[in-house]
Order: sequence, then C-alpha cells, then structure tokens
Amino acid sequence: MGSTTNASFGLTVYRGTFIQLPRLPDTGAVKAKPELVRNQGALWVSAADGRIKGWDWQAHDDARFAELMTRNGWVDIDVDVDGQGSKTKVKIVTASEEKNEFFFPGFIDTHIHAPQYPNAGLFGSSTLLGWLETYTFPVESGFGNQPDPKTGYQQQTKAGETPLAAQTIYDQVISRTLSHGTTCASYFATIHIPATNALATLCKKHGQRAFIGRVCMDNPDFCPKYYRDFSAEDSLTATKATIAHIQSIDPTGSLINPILTPRFAPSCTRPALESLGALAASYSPPLHIQTHIAENTNEVTLVNDLFPEAGSYAAVYDRYNLLTPRTILAHAVHLSKDEKALIAKRDAKISHCPASNSALGSGIAPVRSFLDVGITVGLGTDVSGGYSPSILEAARQTCLASRLLGHTAAFEMEFECGHSHVKGEDEKQKQKEREDEAARVKLSVPESLYLATRGGAAVVDMADEIGGFDLGMLWDVQLVQLGAVKGLPESPLDDGEGDRVDLVRPGPVGNVDLFGTETWEEKVEKWLWNGDDRNVKAVWVAGRLVHSRV
Amino acid sequence: MGSTTNASFGLTVYRGTFIQLPRLPDTGAVKAKPELVRNQGALWVSAADGRIKGWDWQAHDDARFAELMTRNGWVDIDVDVDGQGSKTKVKIVTASEEKNEFFFPGFIDTHIHAPQYPNAGLFGSSTLLGWLETYTFPVESGFGNQPDPKTGYQQQTKAGETPLAAQTIYDQVISRTLSHGTTCASYFATIHIPATNALATLCKKHGQRAFIGRVCMDNPDFCPKYYRDFSAEDSLTATKATIAHIQSIDPTGSLINPILTPRFAPSCTRPALESLGALAASYSPPLHIQTHIAENTNEVTLVNDLFPEAGSYAAVYDRYNLLTPRTILAHAVHLSKDEKALIAKRDAKISHCPASNSALGSGIAPVRSFLDVGITVGLGTDVSGGYSPSILEAARQTCLASRLLGHTAAFEMEFECGHSHVKGEDEKQKQKEREDEAARVKLSVPESLYLATRGGAAVVDMADEIGGFDLGMLWDVQLVQLGAVKGLPESPLDDGEGDRVDLVRPGPVGNVDLFGTETWEEKVEKWLWNGDDRNVKAVWVAGRLVHSRV
Repeated sequence: MGSTTNASFGLTVYRGTFIQLPRLPDTGAVKAKPELVRNQGALWVSAADGRIKGWDWQAHDDARFAELMTRNGWVDIDVDVDGQGSKTKVKIVTASEEKNEFFFPGFIDTHIHAPQYPNAGLFGSSTLLGWLETYTFPVESGFGNQPDPKTGYQQQTKAGETPLAAQTIYDQVISRTLSHGTTCASYFATIHIPATNALATLCKKHGQRAFIGRVCMDNPDFCPKYYRDFSAEDSLTATKATIAHIQSIDPTGSLINPILTPRFAPSCTRPALESLGALAASYSPPLHIQTHIAENTNEVTLVNDLFPEAGSYAAVYDRYNLLTPRTILAHAVHLSKDEKALIAKRDAKISHCPASNSALGSGIAPVRSFLDVGITVGLGTDVSGGYSPSILEAARQTCLASRLLGHTAAFEMEFECGHSHVKGEDEKQKQKEREDEAARVKLSVPESLYLATRGGAAVVDMADEIGGFDLGMLWDVQLVQLGAVKGLPESPLDDGEGDRVDLVRPGPVGNVDLFGTETWEEKVEKWLWNGDDRNVKAVWVAGRLVHSRV
Repeated sequence: MGSTTNASFGLTVYRGTFIQLPRLPDTGAVKAKPELVRNQGALWVSAADGRIKGWDWQAHDDARFAELMTRNGWVDIDVDVDGQGSKTKVKIVTASEEKNEFFFPGFIDTHIHAPQYPNAGLFGSSTLLGWLETYTFPVESGFGNQPDPKTGYQQQTKAGETPLAAQTIYDQVISRTLSHGTTCASYFATIHIPATNALATLCKKHGQRAFIGRVCMDNPDFCPKYYRDFSAEDSLTATKATIAHIQSIDPTGSLINPILTPRFAPSCTRPALESLGALAASYSPPLHIQTHIAENTNEVTLVNDLFPEAGSYAAVYDRYNLLTPRTILAHAVHLSKDEKALIAKRDAKISHCPASNSALGSGIAPVRSFLDVGITVGLGTDVSGGYSPSILEAARQTCLASRLLGHTAAFEMEFECGHSHVKGEDEKQKQKEREDEAARVKLSVPESLYLATRGGAAVVDMADEIGGFDLGMLWDVQLVQLGAVKGLPESPLDDGEGDRVDLVRPGPVGNVDLFGTETWEEKVEKWLWNGDDRNVKAVWVAGRLVHSRV
C-alpha cells in the first residue's frame, strides 16, 4: 500500500471486493430502499486527479487480472521497474479476500464541533441549553485569548496566536475522525479567526476533505460575555477573514472549503442572520451554510419566543435566506409538518445526529418522515453532544433510534393524526397498522450506510463527486478489514487440562467475529454492529493515503 | 503481572488506583443514587482462596508502600527471592498512574445466550417472535444432532457428541466476554445435554464464573419440531443431567453453578413449569432460575392468550413458584404496576438488556420505576438479541435508553396517570413537572456502572461475594487502562510542510482520548462512553488471571 502522491506512476489499481450503496435517482434521498452492492475485480484511479477512471469486474482472479494488466500495457511498479520503458507503471493495492477486506466509500460527517472534542463523553445528565453553558462555551472560549480583565470580553486573538492546546485538539480530532474512516467532515470551529484558520490548515496537512465554519454568535441576550462576537458587523468581518484564509490555502476548493456557520437562531441577532444570508448569496455558487434546528423542545420554545414574527424555527432561517440547497440543518428532532415541507421546498439538507440526540435526551429524529417528503439526509457525529467521533457509531445509533421511534409519544400522535379511523374500527386492525408503521420507519443497515456515504455526499452538495465508486468520482475511500475466521484448536474441549490465560489471538480484527457461515451482506451487518476503528485498515482522500493501521 | 495460581507465594498485592461503586444499604437496588468511589494505595488478596484480605489507602507512594511491606514482613517475589526465609513472599501487581490505569470490579452479565453468539449483529429489522424463528432456533438447533429424517425431531445427542462448531462458538464467546471484563455470566445454553455440559466445562477451563442453564422448551404449540424437548418429563430429566455434570466438575459451586432455564412462558407447558419450580425448591439453598419476561408487546399478548387463568405474565411464573429471590427475569420492558409490585414482593431480580431492547425495537425498560419499588436490577448483553458481548456497551446503552425514556408514549401515560392534576392547572407547571420526571428517570454513568457490578452481583445472589472491593470479597476484577495523555509535536501547525500519513500513535489506548484536564470522575465517564476491550488490560476471577492483553 502506498501513497499515490508519488508521481512516478500514473494509476493506482485497487484489487479485491468493493462494496457501496447505489446512487438513487432521487438525489440523496432514500425513498427507494437502497441495498448494498458488491463487485469483485479491479478499479483504477488516476494519480493526477485522484479520480476513478474505470474498472473491470471480470478481473477477479489472478489470470484475468494479469490479462487486464497486459491488455492495458500496465506493469506493477513494485515488481518490475526496469526494462519495460514502453509500459505504464501502476501501483497495485489489494484487499485480501481471506482477511475479509473490502473497499467502502469514505464516511461523511455532516456535523461535528471540532473544538468540543476534549469533552467527548462528558455531559453528565444535562440537556441542550444547560450543556452549552456548562460544558461547551467554556471549552470553546479556550481557543482564543483570555477575556480582557477590564471589559470581560474575549479579544479575537491576532493572527498566529492559536493556543497550543487548541492546535493539539484540532490535530487529534482530525486524526481520530480519519482513523474511523471519515474522509470528509463539516466542522464547526469557534468564533476565533486564528484557531479557525489553524483548523483549515491542519485539515489540509492531514489531507482530510473539510468544510470549515467560523461560528457566528453575536446575540448578547443569549451568548455569554466571555464568548461571543462583539457585533453583527464584527461577526461578518471575522467570517470573511476565515474565508480569505481558506481560499488562500486552497484556491480551487479542491479539499478545504468555507461554510457559513450561524451557531443557531438564538445565538444570532437579526442583522447577523441577514448579513450571512446575503454573504452566502453573493458567491457563485452560493457559499455552504450550516446551523442547528429543532434539537430540543425548550430550544424550540426559545426560538418561538425570540422570533415571534417568523412563525416557526425553519421560517426564521428562511426569512434570512439561510435555507438553501447548500444548507446543512443539524438535528431536526422536533420539526412540524409545515417546517418539513418548507425545508423540502428549499432543498435544504438535514444532518441526523442520533448519538447526540440520545445522549442529551433530545429525542428521536423521525428520519423516515424526512425521506418521505424528499429531504436529503446525511449523518453527523455532533461531537461532543455526540460522544463518539465515529460515523459508524452514528450509523449504528441511526438503526437503534429508528427502532425505538415507534414507542415515542410523537410517533403515536403522528399516527393518530395521519390515520383518520372510522369510528368503531376494529382495535386489532388499528394495532396492526400501528405496528406496520413502526416497522416502516425503521432504518435498515444498508439505509444507515447509505446515509453515511451517498446521503452525506448529497448533504455537502457533492453527490457527483464522493460517496461511491461511480466513474469520475474522487477516490475518498476506506479499506475495511474484518479479519479472517478465527483459527482454534482442533477441539477446545481437548485443549489440554491445565489452566490457561486468554490472550488476544489472531484471526478476527477488533470485535467482529466471523464463523465462516456468513453471507457477504451479513459480514457488512456484523461490521455495522460491532466494528470500530480497528477495522479501518487504510483511508484515502482524492487518491492520497491519509491514514493507515500498521 | 502474574497468575496467582502459582502457590509459591501467599498473597498478591495490588497497587495503584481502585475505583468502585459503594454497596448500598438496600441490597442491589439503587434507590440512593450511588457515586463513584476512588481509593489509591494497596490491597491484598490471598492466593489460597482469591479473596480480599485487607488494604492500606495510606500506601499510595513508594515510601509508604515500602513501609507497608516492611511492617507486614512481606518481600516482593520478583525482586528478592533468596535470603529472606523468614519473610512472606508476595506478588505485586501495579496499575500505572501515568497510563491512567485503575482496578475496577469485573462486570456481571446477567443475561446472555452463548449459542447465539455467531448471530451477534444479525437480526435485520425483525422483532422478537419473528427473530426467534428466523435467526435463533436454527442456530441453537445446530448444537445437537441433525433432526431424525423419519420423525423430524431432533435427538438429544449422546454424551461427548458436541459438534465441533458448537465447541468453537462456546470457546469464543467465553474468550470475548472475558476480554470485555465480564468475570461472571449467566448463560442460556441450548436444549442439548452434551453441549450444555461442554459450555460448563469450557467456562471452568477459561476460569470464568458462570451460571449454566440448559434451555427448557417443550410446548409443541410454540416450539418448532426440530428444536424442542420431547415432553415436560424429558425436559426435567435432561435438566437434571446437566446439573449432575456441573456439580461433578465443581462440587462446591465455587465457580460454575447450574441455573434452571425455562426459556419463557410461551415455550413451556404447564407441567414443565410446575416441575421446574418444584425442582428449584427441592434444593437448599434453592436453585437459581432464569427466564424472560415482557420483552415485547406481542409476546405479552401471546402469554395472556396462552395463560388466561394467571392474570398477568409475572403471575404465570409466580403460579409455578418460579418467582423467587434467585430468579433472573430478563427484559421487563412492558410490566404493569401490579407485576412490578409482585416481583418486588417475591424479591425476584431483573436483568436490563437495553442494547437488545433497542436493536429488536422492543422498547425501553423503565429501570427507575423498578428501583423505585425496590427491585434489584443488573445488566445483560442478551447476545444475540443484543449485538455486543460487552457489558460496558450495555452500560452505555443503559444511559442512552434512559435519556430517551421521557419521550416515550409509555412514560407519557405513566406521567398522566401518576399526576392527578387540578383542573385548570397551569400548563407550564405541568410541563415543568414532566421535565423533572424525565430528568429523574435518567440513569447516570455511576448508576449504570453500579448496575453492571454491584447490581449484577445482587441479581445472581452474590452481593456479599463479588461486585466490589469489600473485605472478604472474591478478587473478580478488571484492570482498566485508559492510556497516557497523547504526546504531540511541539506545535502541530509547525510539523513540517510535507504530506503525512496518519499512523496510530502511542498515548491513548483504544478510543479514549485524555487531554490532561479531566478529573478522575471524568476519566471514568470517558471510559463509559468511548471505551472498549482495548481498555481491559487484565481480568482476574477469584484471584486467578484469566485474560490479559499483551
């Protein structure tokens, strides 16, 4: 396995098993239930642009692979470098069948707060608004200077003055997310210009595709004095400064892009929201936008109190032109039917963050109802409302939460409203319909993995570029290793009489145990339910190797 | 680190940090909210019986530890074995402070189906009754002979005829649970005598404390022909055969004990239930019993249809003397108030299995309501309704599920019934009370870990023996390693200009990232939320080292 940044060869040829979700006609949405697709053979990626140039699903044995090489005039750079001057050197990366390895599209984390990473797993039993005050604002404020002792306000740090602790945290969160197979992340940073710029620079260094958002929060009635923008104008100016930095380090936006980030409605004044909406629209294509919506019932009440003129939470954003096809709305646990319709109409996207929603007791987002009305959905870890930087964990929690949805009061109310039953209707029939609906709203393993890849790609408006193995797509991919079927003594019962100490033995990788009886779809299910970063053997972004386990 | 089965020394002295939950006055129950307790110093365990003989919480530095050694006339077997004839040789095991290691009581898995382990993570989107038919009965039936081609019945295999695949599965599930820190498990086996006996023998070999239950299921109206006991009488006879084997390999029951295991009410005829209740009572103390209760609403309906005379699911078991202080009832998601009162009155125990309940969409068990009425609760993985063999994962899911409880229709109904509001009452006040109740039913990290240790100990009726560091308790313990604070380059931003490939770097162990700012309670929280088997460095049962990571 090697980095394709070495320009001494033109192509990398990936051999083995490729598993992905199909791209559905309805971009990003999963109205049609996606099933896993497997191909075995070879696929090649250009070293020049990191894009998929072709494949051959016939070349799944050595003979036919050799034939493919000969036909194309390719020669393996690792075994035959001399005397083949006329041939094209290619790098070959093989996924081992015996070790149950397969290539899978990289995960896309559509909602993650990079500075909160030190708090992953720390939230006590708090809910959203208390958690912000107790855990979140204090840690985020540490990414800039100490508050001025006279005014109590935090100064924006000057260029280059990112605290070392902040750099360390950003470095670690990028390493961690890469190690879990996240090839693209949409990051909330903090309000600080230098630290936000440092996050962008570090993502570029690590080679992780990223959207970087300086957090806008200027409402003095909600944000603490020690951690907020001075004014709507300052908020805009500071945001523009981070955009300028990002565009200076990646002028074509091939890897790192800015994303406008009003924290959420309560933290922003009307002028701030307005100016951000206008800023987004002033670009062509418009800038990406990310924010939160309807995570928690008290938050919804707060927004309705603060913006009585809007009529709904979603309408607040719409009023300020922040509900666009390039807007990521995190959470969406407590949306009204009208809000869902509005979001669908504007083609704004939803980032589903089930680990966070469960951990903070926010509730269960009714994902199926989003898909029903054609809203595009991806997954987010929401570190550190979410405790884990892993999108595989988010996919697992997506399955779990959807299986509990049928037990919620919200589901019950929706069911009662949606089904105008004839009076005197058979109670058993009604119960049957309720069960069918509870079953329908469940998200399957393939659906969750769809949301984690194709869905996320559409959420960041890159459905043509990442999320699968389509021709021309970027090679943003993870190599998953489940491990071999475990070798055991002939008979465990006859394994000597003495005491023994259990050591970790070869065979399985991590916690995925295969017994040799599983179908390939079942192997993927086992990965979803018991897999972790140990199963991520290698990660590439745009063809560049960015993470590898020894 | 060494095994204390080497009798050349009399004591093992464990040095470092010890974290546990306190034993509450109300055995097993958590009516008082337990908080984590930490001690630093030394604790010693007898090699002869594997029990805790004393501790010194003053001996937390080298000087005072040396003083402790001298005072007791102890000498470290590893550094000074000669010329100290009059002194007592002791083995010293140290938990490293720098690597954030600490001793923690071993986990107790109060509900796990050993033969279902190959299905961990395989359940599609099924619910209980369909899952049994599609996934469970087929795999369990493989632990005996093929069904007789003439009769279609499965013969009980003869002694010694445990399929190799079955041995392999049992061997692996024991290895896996040990690697996750499970020192004691209450296992459901299958209906087969030889395979059940093999499970007991393998637990003894591995050194895992276990309760082993041959599954009783003789109801021809519910159980498939290819996998059931021939009759109630055969069910009893076969059960007695496995009890005889277990008592032959562990006459004093110091490690392995039998447990009567009527699968659940629908799978058993009335004569079978009756004879099992009588068999339990014929022993002194009575035999342990385990079964399922009220996991799924359709199952509850089925039981009410099958046993109309009983009045409730719990009452079915009570009618046949199966509701005893040594009975483990798994799940208990959908109990009535009367059933909870009956279970409390009989002092029967509940095994809470949240990973399974979420995965199969069974619902959320209202654990706080059990504790409110004084029912003892422990945790179960319920492999393979539960996807994970880890009790740490069960503890995590306990926290998550309890945070979603306030959103369920069942909670809403309970709240409405329990709070007789004055007409015209302030809606805001009512909302506040609802929120307070939703907050009250949440289970904290310490509470979940209490259930995983002290709670589980009480569930298996061993509250005096295991689950903590009390004087005289068995050393059933795990050594947890979180790892050091990660070392990083001076400034990640200045770390050279070239591309880099992220490799797994030293510092953190597994997915727990420490930044040096955490309190010790927060370190435990981080372990709960992001820990896995990588953080289990060593495991002892009754002082014997049974698992170790290299």
